[in-house]
Amino acid sequence: MTPTIDALVAAIARPDDDPQRRTAEAAAEARWDTRAKPPGSLGALEAIGTRLAGIAGTCPPPVPSRPAVAVFAGDHGVVADGASAWPSDVTGLMVRGMAAGGAAINAIAATVGATVTVVDVGVAADLGDLRGGAGAEVVHAKVRPGTTSIAQGAAMSVDEARAAVEAGARVALDLLESGADLLVGGDMGIGNTTPSAALVCRLTGRPASDVVGPGAGVPAAGLARKEEIVATAAARAARLDDPLAVLAEVGGLEIAALAGLYLAAAARRVPAIVDGVIAAAALCMADALAPGTAARTLAGHVSTEPASRAALEHLGLVPVLDLGMRLGEGTGACLAVPLVQAAARALRDMADLPS
Amino acid sequence: MTPTIDALVAAIARPDDDPQRRTAEAAAEARWDTRAKPPGSLGALEAIGTRLAGIAGTCPPPVPSRPAVAVFAGDHGVVADGASAWPSDVTGLMVRGMAAGGAAINAIAATVGATVTVVDVGVAADLGDLRGGAGAEVVHAKVRPGTTSIAQGAAMSVDEARAAVEAGARVALDLLESGADLLVGGDMGIGNTTPSAALVCRLTGRPASDVVGPGAGVPAAGLARKEEIVATAAARAARLDDPLAVLAEVGGLEIAALAGLYLAAAARRVPAIVDGVIAAAALCMADALAPGTAARTLAGHVSTEPASRAALEHLGLVPVLDLGMRLGEGTGACLAVPLVQAAARALRDMADLPS
Repeated sequence: MTPTIDALVAAIARPDDDPQRRTAEAAAEARWDTRAKPPGSLGALEAIGTRLAGIAGTCPPPVPSRPAVAVFAGDHGVVADGASAWPSDVTGLMVRGMAAGGAAINAIAATVGATVTVVDVGVAADLGDLRGGAGAEVVHAKVRPGTTSIAQGAAMSVDEARAAVEAGARVALDLLESGADLLVGGDMGIGNTTPSAALVCRLTGRPASDVVGPGAGVPAAGLARKEEIVATAAARAARLDDPLAVLAEVGGLEIAALAGLYLAAAARRVPAIVDGVIAAAALCMADALAPGTAARTLAGHVSTEPASRAALEHLGLVPVLDLGMRLGEGTGACLAVPLVQAAARALRDMADLPS
Repeated sequence: MTPTIDALVAAIARPDDDPQRRTAEAAAEARWDTRAKPPGSLGALEAIGTRLAGIAGTCPPPVPSRPAVAVFAGDHGVVADGASAWPSDVTGLMVRGMAAGGAAINAIAATVGATVTVVDVGVAADLGDLRGGAGAEVVHAKVRPGTTSIAQGAAMSVDEARAAVEAGARVALDLLESGADLLVGGDMGIGNTTPSAALVCRLTGRPASDVVGPGAGVPAAGLARKEEIVATAAARAARLDDPLAVLAEVGGLEIAALAGLYLAAAARRVPAIVDGVIAAAALCMADALAPGTAARTLAGHVSTEPASRAALEHLGLVPVLDLGMRLGEGTGACLAVPLVQAAARALRDMADLPS
């Protein structure tokens, strides 16, 4: 059964109404201060461990041992309007590459012991023949083959946006039911830094000039054209109040699905690690749908794409890694998996201070 | 047979005389640019992969699968002169804690699949009864029970410094012979940020005020007293030219052993990941003994202790992680292990760009 957005939203407490989180975080802070180390000397690792306690609502929190990556793929009509240096065909080719194990996320997930599931939620090409391979499981959940260009009008209908969010949540819940205890969401979609920037503009109130970057490569028509598209789309979205309507107007299918993954993880109090700019835009959307979602997630890394940092700052999230990456696919978040595991393990297993 | 420093030094090429490194690095850069991703989009991961190729002298470089941590422990006479907020007794207690599995490094090493070996190269307490436990193998290689206070005179004799360097190299070579293919050096020694700062002063030419920090906690006698000790010791060392004499004058036994580990790894062209301030000081020493050692190592993280960044800058190393950590034990470097593995794996396994 596919979870409804309403049911997920109802399971996520607002940040100021989550006493279980606050109690667990206070217990974690107290526990860190009596471990066998100078107080505070594990730096960001202590903050991660404390956050994990808050997410789980218990201290010490579980030590994640079965990380799972879900890469959501979709295409973007705006590519035809010059938003990217790469053609849309590459999206489908990269999905096939992931199934075969040749993408960056395959190498990184294998390193950290994570499974990879690639989800066609909106690829323009027909991938109906594609089965799981050496690199990834494949889930077919296409809502529609790519969006309408956000330079021209709404990316999709509200019903389609809802369906894509719920598809992402379904994938997340299936992974949790299979035993996964730490989720990483990733994206594959040529042109998707453009709708992501538009969403970040709309949801953070920042101007397009603050959040538009070159993405996977400076678009053929130049950065100025990309910024113009983002500003125009964000201005249309500014007239809409309902988050789902905003998502439909200027979002993307894989972005919607990622938002669904974050909602599902937060609803189940399982940690999810947020990747770069696409993922952070999706988390802004998830947090708009259910305030409190971001408070139950971790930021894995910050991308060089400016909307990444803008979105994380808006959400009050501090990234674990800052490696100058801008690849997507969940790669940055996946690299943070061992650090998250180490934080939980140290909090659970370290002895008291010697006396 | 214990390796001599001279034999190790002879096996390490100077940075400007290592054509195998340059050729492998150029091949790695070219390989990255044809992988299935936008050029440069893996950021620091690409730099790490290229460096691994240079260290191994081959492209793609081996993917490390058997990381090993060696934590060298020693005590410091300078603690009696007010260099630390903690008593020297804690060093031996923490070594026992590591053998039992209760230290931070145990939790982090277990997370990344690394073995832990703790080496008594100069602990003041008698640890003769200590055997390997649930957390770590134990190696007894005590050169002497702690150093003389560097506030009073030479920390140790040149022969003792040499013996400690060679003990560290021996441990490293034993780990490599057991199959380890990635080394992490760590330290345990109450008071050891003081000799580390003195070494960094002497080897980088920076004033004490640039490199002295609170270490594991502001010393009882205050930071000003610590800075005075470091400045005085560094001034004595400034009159010495021979690196080993400098090490004997203002160093420490575990610092010397760490230098030996880096020499051994570099001599065998196996990557070693440098930890925080103690480790970086030791690498400065190793690179003074054998210029080219630093060019064959990786910086795992930068500590909040100021001598850490000063030493890395002097060596031209860019840290992978910056997590506000200042614990030692090899913890920061150990957290970088999966990132190093992921870089090597991506460089080896990623497919060509789709065409």
